[in-house]
Amino acid sequence: MKAAIIGGGVIGGGWAARFLLNGWNVVVHDPDPEAERKIGEVLTNARRALPALYDKALPAEGTLRFTADLADACDAADWVQESVPERLDIKHRILGELTRQAPDRAVIGSSTSGFKPSELAAQGARVIVAHPFNPVYLLPLIELVGDTDHCAQAADILRGIGMFPLHVRKEVDAHIADRFLEAVWREALWLVKDGIATTGEIDESIRMGFGLRWAQMGLFETYRVAGGEAGMKHFMAQFGPCLAWPWTKLMDVPEFTEELVDLIAGQSDEQSGHRSIRELERLRDDNLVGVIRALKVSGSGAGGVLKAHEAALAWPESSSLPVTLDRQVPQGWTDYNGHMNEVHYLEAGSRATDRFMEIVGADAAYVAKGLSYFTVENHVRYLGEVLAGDRLRAETRLLDGMGKKLHLFHTLTRGDGTAVATVESLLLHVDLGTRKTCLPELTVSNALAAMAASQAAMPAPEGSGKVGR
Amino acid sequence: MKAAIIGGGVIGGGWAARFLLNGWNVVVHDPDPEAERKIGEVLTNARRALPALYDKALPAEGTLRFTADLADACDAADWVQESVPERLDIKHRILGELTRQAPDRAVIGSSTSGFKPSELAAQGARVIVAHPFNPVYLLPLIELVGDTDHCAQAADILRGIGMFPLHVRKEVDAHIADRFLEAVWREALWLVKDGIATTGEIDESIRMGFGLRWAQMGLFETYRVAGGEAGMKHFMAQFGPCLAWPWTKLMDVPEFTEELVDLIAGQSDEQSGHRSIRELERLRDDNLVGVIRALKVSGSGAGGVLKAHEAALAWPESSSLPVTLDRQVPQGWTDYNGHMNEVHYLEAGSRATDRFMEIVGADAAYVAKGLSYFTVENHVRYLGEVLAGDRLRAETRLLDGMGKKLHLFHTLTRGDGTAVATVESLLLHVDLGTRKTCLPELTVSNALAAMAASQAAMPAPEGSGKVGR
Repeated sequence: MKAAIIGGGVIGGGWAARFLLNGWNVVVHDPDPEAERKIGEVLTNARRALPALYDKALPAEGTLRFTADLADACDAADWVQESVPERLDIKHRILGELTRQAPDRAVIGSSTSGFKPSELAAQGARVIVAHPFNPVYLLPLIELVGDTDHCAQAADILRGIGMFPLHVRKEVDAHIADRFLEAVWREALWLVKDGIATTGEIDESIRMGFGLRWAQMGLFETYRVAGGEAGMKHFMAQFGPCLAWPWTKLMDVPEFTEELVDLIAGQSDEQSGHRSIRELERLRDDNLVGVIRALKVSGSGAGGVLKAHEAALAWPESSSLPVTLDRQVPQGWTDYNGHMNEVHYLEAGSRATDRFMEIVGADAAYVAKGLSYFTVENHVRYLGEVLAGDRLRAETRLLDGMGKKLHLFHTLTRGDGTAVATVESLLLHVDLGTRKTCLPELTVSNALAAMAASQAAMPAPEGSGKVGR
Repeated sequence: MKAAIIGGGVIGGGWAARFLLNGWNVVVHDPDPEAERKIGEVLTNARRALPALYDKALPAEGTLRFTADLADACDAADWVQESVPERLDIKHRILGELTRQAPDRAVIGSSTSGFKPSELAAQGARVIVAHPFNPVYLLPLIELVGDTDHCAQAADILRGIGMFPLHVRKEVDAHIADRFLEAVWREALWLVKDGIATTGEIDESIRMGFGLRWAQMGLFETYRVAGGEAGMKHFMAQFGPCLAWPWTKLMDVPEFTEELVDLIAGQSDEQSGHRSIRELERLRDDNLVGVIRALKVSGSGAGGVLKAHEAALAWPESSSLPVTLDRQVPQGWTDYNGHMNEVHYLEAGSRATDRFMEIVGADAAYVAKGLSYFTVENHVRYLGEVLAGDRLRAETRLLDGMGKKLHLFHTLTRGDGTAVATVESLLLHVDLGTRKTCLPELTVSNALAAMAASQAAMPAPEGSGKVGR
């Protein structure tokens, strides 16, 4: 699959990274001589962060090239994304050209924050709004506005690269999310201008309170819960009267004077001028990865999108031994010694065990029937350091799968092929109702027997034999 | 320390839980005959969630009682919190009474969302605004408004119970955060009323996008980063013109008709009517715990508040062996088998090792000097199941601390005293510069020798001897 990225700023670069890291080939068109450097920097961030969301490796990265020729960029493209400056005359010129050059089957999306599809298409361009949020390589939301069939086609593709398409059914200035951002921005400008709060205080008022709620539930669901047993109607009855109160200053917008700009820029410098934008971006990305991974546990919001996308990713081919883990090491797995913490070696081994169980048929459906394996003993040998960003892979040897026993030996290797740990695990098959051991079902014991037979000629792995005595 | 909670709804109950779980004694005054049941339910949620944030046990819970007598509630109180309905006449009556009954040194705080301190104190009450966010037992933000000395006194107390006081320096309707909430609420009402988006679509537009950013950085810091290398001024220049555009409908507020209320309540039912409010609360709390714990890794926002509070919590007294872990098991540590996942047994052991290193002087300052211990082998025996909410404790035996070696044996016990696992660890002392082994400094080797001597008469623990051969 090929994506043409027209305009390679922060947003275009984010689109390029999202496609590339999901295995698409990407061609970028941008007249800025700095475009290649800028996109390179976005890509460095994205390579560090996006794979760290997943407990499985993403597809092999696609190819990236730059072209000055719009026709070349659009040739055989499946998706063409326009992210040029927010001026309608520029958009009209470029979108007209894209409509002529792109294959008929290609989605032509515009990253515009504010223009409606009818405005973009006023001179005949075939375009939908596909409005992303920064950083595009991490945040799942894409607002789709325009022709229903084109939006449905686009939505399928976006889900395939781990995104969450939201079809905005009626076009409106600024779509949906940016209307909220604009409302808060206007109110915030007033508060700074009136000297009520600094930029730093405003940020604290958001991230220490409702920001934590909104990351997982949004607005209405949060209020539904706040309404308590009495429900949504009660909540609305309680807060309805406030609509008439002077609780915001909105629409009555402060003038954007040089003084106000200086005031805000100065406060922002004081807040974090000691950190470079690159440092702040990495901090933001690490936090986003942590937050989205945290939401994956319950499958809420962005965590649910991640979960579904990860499940759809293919496992690598196995050779003599089954590959039971293949992933990138996230920043959050490292500790004060500057390397992957000892706990996550076992986490890798534990996930390899889960995958092994799936392979032999002791999968989620089997567990749902009330049967599973419980670990009784683990032995971990630490053979080498692993750093954030390293690729980590496990192959699993079945040492014993007779009766209630499951005796596994995982070898973890780093991207360069060095063995970095072995995890030897002894598990027993259990009935989840009684919590007592019992024999596995025939499908599972047969699969284990077949695998044991295929490995029978192999010697015992070096370092094994530390559990079960 | 004693807190008097005046008004025991969702907010008053949240305050009660926050104080109780931080070791305060709490007396609740509420005329509602259901108050005791309602606060009991908030407490059940809080006991499940708040301790799960921490990797250390909170202080022993204080006592809780209910009283119909306001003077009794206020007697010897250090903090008096008013959370009665948002009607100024009721607030005046109660706050006047509280000012007469409470000790002079007590903080008298009002949970009001909208009233300014000057309005509350119009009839002579000594009161500051101490405005919390639901759920009060998890979200750190408290907006303090009013007399600077009283606010400073209140801020110290709030930090002691793990909260983040934000001093609002100039009083304004709705303080700071609720002005943003009100702006978004008004805009959202328009979108629903105009049929642009449903409550569910609006929630997705928030939690799949900017909600994830705001949980960690807030508004201005996010834009600072989005502005990229060109910085905050560039960002403002780019988005300044939008202020004149119809990107929000604010202040021009929709009428709160019965039709609009029904429309919203109906959409909200469709969104999650299949789940009870209690279920939604638990989901929200689990997600908040996960998100705040994720932010603890970088120390951003609420994660930084948690980190500082946890560091200030006391370790329990040790008897013959050092207690190296004492904590509650969070929901996020459980797996598809309905119990604590195997990985977190080692996580508990690893944290016990960290604590042991602190005890013998190989602490953060020692690591900062470039010296540390690396684990070379771990052996875990799983002896019993552990459930979310269980108290988990570790005692650590030093088996060998001579030369470069550190050989530890952690015994993990559940709240009921049952041993649930042993974790045997072998570590080697290293130079973090060369990544090679070396001898520890004298302070550490002496501390190890002294501890080894004090344990010399003890027999080898049952099940030990599985590493280092």
